[in-house]
Amino acid sequence: MTALSDLSAHSAEALEAARARVCALHAELTRWNLVTWTSGNISERVPGTDLVVIKPSGVTYEDLTPDSMVVCDLRGERLDGRHAPSSDTDAHAYVYRHMPEVNAVVHTHSTYATAWAARSEPIPCAITAMADEFGDDIPVGPFALIGGDDIGRGIVATLDGHRSPAVLMAKHGVFTVGKDAKAAVKAAVMCEDVARTVHLAREHGPVERLPQEHIDALYDRYQNVYGQREGSDT
Amino acid sequence: MTALSDLSAHSAEALEAARARVCALHAELTRWNLVTWTSGNISERVPGTDLVVIKPSGVTYEDLTPDSMVVCDLRGERLDGRHAPSSDTDAHAYVYRHMPEVNAVVHTHSTYATAWAARSEPIPCAITAMADEFGDDIPVGPFALIGGDDIGRGIVATLDGHRSPAVLMAKHGVFTVGKDAKAAVKAAVMCEDVARTVHLAREHGPVERLPQEHIDALYDRYQNVYGQREGSDT
Amino acid sequence: MTALSDLSAHSAEALEAARARVCALHAELTRWNLVTWTSGNISERVPGTDLVVIKPSGVTYEDLTPDSMVVCDLRGERLDGRHAPSSDTDAHAYVYRHMPEVNAVVHTHSTYATAWAARSEPIPCAITAMADEFGDDIPVGPFALIGGDDIGRGIVATLDGHRSPAVLMAKHGVFTVGKDAKAAVKAAVMCEDVARTVHLAREHGPVERLPQEHIDALYDRYQNVYGQREGSDT
Amino acid sequence: MTALSDLSAHSAEALEAARARVCALHAELTRWNLVTWTSGNISERVPGTDLVVIKPSGVTYEDLTPDSMVVCDLRGERLDGRHAPSSDTDAHAYVYRHMPEVNAVVHTHSTYATAWAARSEPIPCAITAMADEFGDDIPVGPFALIGGDDIGRGIVATLDGHRSPAVLMAKHGVFTVGKDAKAAVKAAVMCEDVARTVHLAREHGPVERLPQEHIDALYDRYQNVYGQREGSDT
Repeated sequence: MTALSDLSAHSAEALEAARARVCALHAELTRWNLVTWTSGNISERVPGTDLVVIKPSGVTYEDLTPDSMVVCDLRGERLDGRHAPSSDTDAHAYVYRHMPEVNAVVHTHSTYATAWAARSEPIPCAITAMADEFGDDIPVGPFALIGGDDIGRGIVATLDGHRSPAVLMAKHGVFTVGKDAKAAVKAAVMCEDVARTVHLAREHGPVERLPQEHIDALYDRYQNVYGQREGSDT
Repeated sequence: MTALSDLSAHSAEALEAARARVCALHAELTRWNLVTWTSGNISERVPGTDLVVIKPSGVTYEDLTPDSMVVCDLRGERLDGRHAPSSDTDAHAYVYRHMPEVNAVVHTHSTYATAWAARSEPIPCAITAMADEFGDDIPVGPFALIGGDDIGRGIVATLDGHRSPAVLMAKHGVFTVGKDAKAAVKAAVMCEDVARTVHLAREHGPVERLPQEHIDALYDRYQNVYGQREGSDT
Repeated sequence: MTALSDLSAHSAEALEAARARVCALHAELTRWNLVTWTSGNISERVPGTDLVVIKPSGVTYEDLTPDSMVVCDLRGERLDGRHAPSSDTDAHAYVYRHMPEVNAVVHTHSTYATAWAARSEPIPCAITAMADEFGDDIPVGPFALIGGDDIGRGIVATLDGHRSPAVLMAKHGVFTVGKDAKAAVKAAVMCEDVARTVHLAREHGPVERLPQEHIDALYDRYQNVYGQREGSDT
Repeated sequence: MTALSDLSAHSAEALEAARARVCALHAELTRWNLVTWTSGNISERVPGTDLVVIKPSGVTYEDLTPDSMVVCDLRGERLDGRHAPSSDTDAHAYVYRHMPEVNAVVHTHSTYATAWAARSEPIPCAITAMADEFGDDIPVGPFALIGGDDIGRGIVATLDGHRSPAVLMAKHGVFTVGKDAKAAVKAAVMCEDVARTVHLAREHGPVERLPQEHIDALYDRYQNVYGQREGSDT
């Protein structure tokens, strides 16, 4: 366990950067209308450490500051911060302990995705934007009560080995993962977008899943070709 | 009956604070798209008094100022303010007289909640966010005409002893109650949010109510654990 | 016919006020999401004159200025203004000639109202907010091509003697009328609001019209009691 | 092939103007909610040249500057710009090579239009606003994988000789064309608007196409009479 006072200068700097980054990315959740009142949260593993930066519990989005972010260890215990960490901290911590390639977790109750979750129904991979980002249907995880490891276990059991960075937790909402907080936020934004489009499409007739070969081709291209390859992070 | 000129310095200060608070919270109704044109209103019981601060009738949201808020007694009679009080004042006053634990009332015609109200259909407690905030289905109260005590009586008959701080008044809209104005506004915001999610969920298949034991566990946790416990009000 | 150079000082002042008022109210159409790109328009009869102030054709909302408003006579002929008047000017002018109590007309293709219009289906008076503002179902007028008096004739034939200040023109959109531009804009805003709510309500079951006696009581009260009665215009 | 260093002063100026114009119009895509995260793109043929200005790939909308726009030739090869061009550049370039009257292309995954595309269903010309802008149903193009000329070929095969400036590419999204970038953006905005209205209209009953003669009359009038004819570009 890393105690905060023992952090190297390098790690202390990484921690400050993560606080600022995680705080700022919360504005994307409101901007894309994924959250209501104080619901939703983002966390990120601090690079090179066993620390996690996460949203404080029940604080409104416009009151968030880098300083109000809470620092926890990988068991979800608060190491620093004047606020209690998100009530979903246990779930985030479980994911970090069991999916070492995951460095960020986002949780929302975004409307259309949660509507699929309320029926415990996966979103079929029916449009190219969904193949690009998710590479498959968006799967449904089990119903689990908050508190303890049940939600985290459900996320990991569903996403481990799955292409999709998003899981619909039954009767609850969405969790997404990523290599960093920006990637996990993007997955949350795109999850709601495709959940809405496929929901609407089905209102006037059946919607067919794309053929697997097309999904594979689109996913491979988007993950490996799309965007800037010259030092840009976008 | 407290006459405004007889208020103690302490109560006069509480009144000014309530005017500012109630005025400011009206901005949350527009921000979360719960109201159209001049519809909707918030009131709060002034702590330590028999006074109620309420929105003026038919004034647009951007013209509201603390000074334009109307002060009424518990029968809904205006004691101070240059405007007529909200046309829903009788309903608010009835609630304050009959539910002493309630210190705030919010009324909206928010779209999805009013769609359920138009069918006189309660919203089933089908997702965890709903169990958290409402602890049950959101119930429907009777149809009642505005003016006199009918609406107030319907609200009290439906909410008294019910966990839900929100009631759908048939063919009309939503009333929420709370320990303070912020809590009642939050209930109005969350009511629309869950009304929308469950509405959408049902468009593509049946949506089952959560098992009662899960609702109880979620409600208990959210009311007693969620948020900040260290002097923060959020 | 009043020529602009013959206007009394009083009428010239009324004209300038109308230009400013009509221009400013167009911002309400965008604020409430009733219009897309350059669609939609507002006109007002200048008090004490035979003049009408109306939006220029095909100009984007953010480019509107009081000076860009077009002044027409009651036959829709432009008397002043560097732009061509709205392509709906003939319809507005017809209404002014045949409904002397109407001093303002608003036209939009707002989404939900136009969806009812696309089916040529009136909106049933199923919620109290609708009884308040419209006092009845919102009726459907005939299909009519733009240009000439056909649209105006359809509006007048439908609204003359009807409580509702809004008509759904079949396969087209909404026209509303009012005693002034603010009232007609309010009717357009509320028309979309109730069109959306009743549309959504019907998605999950039948929605019954309110009993006529309740509609009458609500309409009478709202028109005569609601709002400020002490010199306020709201 | 025009090399950028060989551009005449006149063409160099036209290029700078196109960079600024194309960059600014991207703000309309976000303003009208047609795009999510970095999806969507606009390109324009630089007047008097064989150059195309297009959005960089995977850059967020708020980070776009005139300088970040990418300049390509008519085969989609980048001639200037520090970023990679949009991953849809091949499709845009194919359109420019095969439709000489087209000077701008816009691509979005706007929600309602993409819902129709997910079902491979054309949008019937059922409301006057649709007859005005599109003059017909909005057609569906074939499913095509990104990369190479397949998407461009599908767009051209569908739109060439068709009145509609918009095509729904099956399982994918919308492409629109225009005489300039503003016209193509307007078509994208109106495509989503009518896609939404007709989608909603059909939820409560059948929606009939307008009679062909009415479509013809409306289209002819809108294309030739609507808007300002006195040197205004709107």
